[in-house]
Amino acid sequence: MKKEKIVIIGGGFGGLNAAKSLKKTGAEITLIDKTNHHLFQPLLYQVAAAALSPGDIATPIRGVLRKRKNIKVIMEKVISIDRKNKKVILKDDEIEFDYLIVAVGSRHSYFGNDQWENFAPGLKTISDALKIREKMLYAFEKAEVAKTDAEIDKYLTFVIVGGGPTGVELAGAIAEISKKTMRKDFRRIDPSKTKIILVEGENRILTTYDNSLSKAAEESLKQMGVNVLLNRKVTEINSEGVQIGDEFINATNVFWAAGNQASPLLKSLNTEQDRAGRIIVDNDCSIKDDANIFIIGDAANFKNGGGKTLPGIAPVAIQQGKYVADIINKNINKEDRKPFKYFDKGTMATIGRAKAVLQIGKFKASGFFAWLTWVFVHIMYLIGFRNRYMVMSEWVWHYINMKNGIRLITNKQNN
Amino acid sequence: MKKEKIVIIGGGFGGLNAAKSLKKTGAEITLIDKTNHHLFQPLLYQVAAAALSPGDIATPIRGVLRKRKNIKVIMEKVISIDRKNKKVILKDDEIEFDYLIVAVGSRHSYFGNDQWENFAPGLKTISDALKIREKMLYAFEKAEVAKTDAEIDKYLTFVIVGGGPTGVELAGAIAEISKKTMRKDFRRIDPSKTKIILVEGENRILTTYDNSLSKAAEESLKQMGVNVLLNRKVTEINSEGVQIGDEFINATNVFWAAGNQASPLLKSLNTEQDRAGRIIVDNDCSIKDDANIFIIGDAANFKNGGGKTLPGIAPVAIQQGKYVADIINKNINKEDRKPFKYFDKGTMATIGRAKAVLQIGKFKASGFFAWLTWVFVHIMYLIGFRNRYMVMSEWVWHYINMKNGIRLITNKQNN
Repeated sequence: MKKEKIVIIGGGFGGLNAAKSLKKTGAEITLIDKTNHHLFQPLLYQVAAAALSPGDIATPIRGVLRKRKNIKVIMEKVISIDRKNKKVILKDDEIEFDYLIVAVGSRHSYFGNDQWENFAPGLKTISDALKIREKMLYAFEKAEVAKTDAEIDKYLTFVIVGGGPTGVELAGAIAEISKKTMRKDFRRIDPSKTKIILVEGENRILTTYDNSLSKAAEESLKQMGVNVLLNRKVTEINSEGVQIGDEFINATNVFWAAGNQASPLLKSLNTEQDRAGRIIVDNDCSIKDDANIFIIGDAANFKNGGGKTLPGIAPVAIQQGKYVADIINKNINKEDRKPFKYFDKGTMATIGRAKAVLQIGKFKASGFFAWLTWVFVHIMYLIGFRNRYMVMSEWVWHYINMKNGIRLITNKQNN
Repeated sequence: MKKEKIVIIGGGFGGLNAAKSLKKTGAEITLIDKTNHHLFQPLLYQVAAAALSPGDIATPIRGVLRKRKNIKVIMEKVISIDRKNKKVILKDDEIEFDYLIVAVGSRHSYFGNDQWENFAPGLKTISDALKIREKMLYAFEKAEVAKTDAEIDKYLTFVIVGGGPTGVELAGAIAEISKKTMRKDFRRIDPSKTKIILVEGENRILTTYDNSLSKAAEESLKQMGVNVLLNRKVTEINSEGVQIGDEFINATNVFWAAGNQASPLLKSLNTEQDRAGRIIVDNDCSIKDDANIFIIGDAANFKNGGGKTLPGIAPVAIQQGKYVADIINKNINKEDRKPFKYFDKGTMATIGRAKAVLQIGKFKASGFFAWLTWVFVHIMYLIGFRNRYMVMSEWVWHYINMKNGIRLITNKQNN
């Protein structure tokens, strides 16, 4: 009998957990990712803020799956999916599948203003994070040698667009590095005078959290010197700064954390997508008319009981990856599949050293306790013992010394 | 009285040690570097070999000097030195000096074949190291999906040109990562079959060491599966491989560790240079006709007793930096200066896990003892307690697990 072929596109939380859980099948499994590493995205903002090294939060996919001899890992970009012929098309190759798991995640979206990306990088990949880190550090260097006060101001104004977890965490981290870590590093400028502005279109930050936690987070950010602007829309971003309503803010440092768009690859599936480009999936994560093609994680629009779409966070992707693997392991027919059910273990966001918010069902917490829980959970979930050990080492050091260690500008050195 | 002005160009071992030692002067000090970090270059090959993160061996120059309020740090490229008007010319600025310390180091040199750099990157900066790392890791990825055996061979052949410490250490590190760390990560190719070739023009590697140590190092490399070619000259490098004497070796991975050329900036000093572009200095490290301009480290050709030029290694630069600072601190006239005297604390090179060679005057050692000493000395000399702590953490992990942790390809991800 011919061996069945399972193809997984994407080595993020969804794809990797699916691969790890596909243990009870004798099938040939291929995992394709355009990078060579699994990324622990919840800590990516710490790489951007020079607190962690890329190697602390990313780990080679091959290394994770080295003992799974029936899994082949390919580092390639997928060009399209050919549903009719059951093939995944790569640049120089095609891979057949019987089962397909699409876990391609999302990129940031500029809502039709793609030209903004040049001035306001987003934060999805290691290379995004390094871009933000270098841009931020370089701004302080430029400010130190700037000729006029207006120029200094422009270099020392940071605008973060979007008050979700990424925006909040990034704003907090930038406040820490500028107002604490680098405070005494310069002679002409005073980094503690850095202006940090967090812009949110809604009437509160962290809208997916309880109202009281939004307030607590806002309070923490204000204490750290972050200026939080609510109910304000960004209408223009260029090399000089940001237009926020009637006000133009001069700033060289604008970072984007405002919106996501699912991968363009999904279009080739020719099935229903939502406005953010996510595939609308059935309650078993498969797509209409194709019981053996599954979409999981940020790429999927899964309607929970009550018609609410599940959020694009790691626990959803992980649980869906395991759920789908179980269906394939047991070869369950579409009509016999129990619907996927998301188990909400809670969500949390950190605002700075010893400051976080935490919500598990109806349980809410903020402050030091929430932060300790945050540290513990993130260390536990970090893939690979090595990364846990290294991140722990970095954090212990950082907590004691208040120094972000990785303040390196590496790409500019040949300027 | 007007404050004296001291300008230091370069934040490497020489420049940084000069700056740190200029304590007893009330002068205004400016340190200019084109990067924002001091780099612990002796461990750079470990970043290239994915064993350490850039942040482990580099540290922001500002951070090191944060408590020295009379030192200003500028991240800029120096365009030229105007001796007549005692000015250092930057892109948008000029800085006057009374004393000038030039510690600009060297780049690799292709002996007039600059086009080789595209195919055979060298190893001097963090960005060089990341380039080598990504090139190496990407080669294994390409080999895994290659169509023919010849293609696989080409991807899995590594040629390192130059049998000095950098070449030897890089060859050893590549042997370790391919033959041990990644051995089980691939399905189609067998990384342990990787061909690693070290090419040296002379009749032994590590020519600055004692003969017996050259032999020991060669033996260790052979045990690790490195093919050492002696008395062989490279005459051509292109996208297909390397011409070594009569033989053309097909290889995508060629790394350059064969020669150095001092910074082109030195030309603007209009004084005597040697063939490698180094400035020929007097025995007080100053230049002819200008007692207050000092050249130290790799940029200088300092003739030791017997007419032998001091090697371009960290201890020479460190000692010269301190020596020059002492002259400036005490404002000693040229005729009263005691000549610089290099105190040889020994040199060492590591070949792999638990393998190294070590030479202190007439004392020689190789093997495990030499390696332990190497580990100890490198940890001790790493700048900043943070880096010592992080590198120690990485090495302990690596020694126990034989896994290089930082196997990340970050720039290719948008391909």
